[in-house]
Amino acid sequence: MPRDEFERLDSTWASVTPPAARRMLIAAAAAFSARGYHGTTTRDIAAEAGMSPAAVYIHYRSKEELLFQISRIGHATSLSLLTAVTGDDPVARLASAVRVFASWHAEYRTTARVVQYELSALTPEHLAEVAELRRGIEGAVREMVEAGVAAGAFDVPDVRGATLAVLSLCIDVARWFQPDRGRTPAEIGDLYADLVLRMVGAKAP
Amino acid sequence: MPRDEFERLDSTWASVTPPAARRMLIAAAAAFSARGYHGTTTRDIAAEAGMSPAAVYIHYRSKEELLFQISRIGHATSLSLLTAVTGDDPVARLASAVRVFASWHAEYRTTARVVQYELSALTPEHLAEVAELRRGIEGAVREMVEAGVAAGAFDVPDVRGATLAVLSLCIDVARWFQPDRGRTPAEIGDLYADLVLRMVGAKAP
Repeated sequence: MPRDEFERLDSTWASVTPPAARRMLIAAAAAFSARGYHGTTTRDIAAEAGMSPAAVYIHYRSKEELLFQISRIGHATSLSLLTAVTGDDPVARLASAVRVFASWHAEYRTTARVVQYELSALTPEHLAEVAELRRGIEGAVREMVEAGVAAGAFDVPDVRGATLAVLSLCIDVARWFQPDRGRTPAEIGDLYADLVLRMVGAKAP
Repeated sequence: MPRDEFERLDSTWASVTPPAARRMLIAAAAAFSARGYHGTTTRDIAAEAGMSPAAVYIHYRSKEELLFQISRIGHATSLSLLTAVTGDDPVARLASAVRVFASWHAEYRTTARVVQYELSALTPEHLAEVAELRRGIEGAVREMVEAGVAAGAFDVPDVRGATLAVLSLCIDVARWFQPDRGRTPAEIGDLYADLVLRMVGAKAP
């Protein structure tokens, strides 16, 4: 994992205590990202965190428990970013939401990839909990699109379809984003806000 | 891998001969998709193909060679789908390209995920070859956007950015598409063609 993302993750996951448990979660995200969930052992994670393999089990029941915590926190963070975007103007609100959601997926691409690509490795109970957060994320964006339609500010023939596309566009930033490719996360956010406003047929103010 | 995709892959990869080599490639795609490249052994692939582990090495030098062939054929197929879309009307041409590219990523989602998510496991030489195909894919779509701008049919402030978004939107279909979720690959293609025409500010005819 790139050093800069590692450091930012450490602050994102400040709620995870004690620090040893947090360090393990970050190490697990880095290891899953590099070799996949099934290609990673708890021994690999312990080595990445600079701890003994037995120390992992003090804080987490299993490798899957580590994945679940990464997934839960990743999804909860995404959801809170979206619900924090408020305001009465539907155009400005959707633009802000896309800006923050797309740029988050650029900044935290390593975590986002693990979260998005390893869902099938979760237990059914954990997947159900994550699916609830995913429905919340989808609902938050759909509500913004619906508000624009209701206000006469957007022209959207298929609200669910447009919502799906907006989320997909932002999430996929995590797959292709590279910090040395010439666009910053903020620039991606601005580009995508403009493209999404076009997708929903936003009227110029 | 779902049985229907398995069968369609068999026809897509008809160029791979002898049949044993083709069967191994399809087995490798299924195994990489289920457990990731690093979580899969050549023994797993042989078992999936119903062959002995030694038989794998008759046709492929290594596990990485299998991944490379999947990646090369997957990218070459994507590129040929896009370059096959011709016509003088830039609006109809881009719409057709998006329809075919998005629906392909729904139909062949398992293969597409392996192709997109395991690039970092390729050797530098193989990655360079795949990167050349990726530049071709990006160039094919960019050329369609540029043609629309040149003809006065599109309004695109950032051609490279819009091209990136169009490709990303279509590719990410492979991540979330599920055949039982109510939309067919063709319906996704139609939805996305409309959304992309909005993104490029296509003038109504």
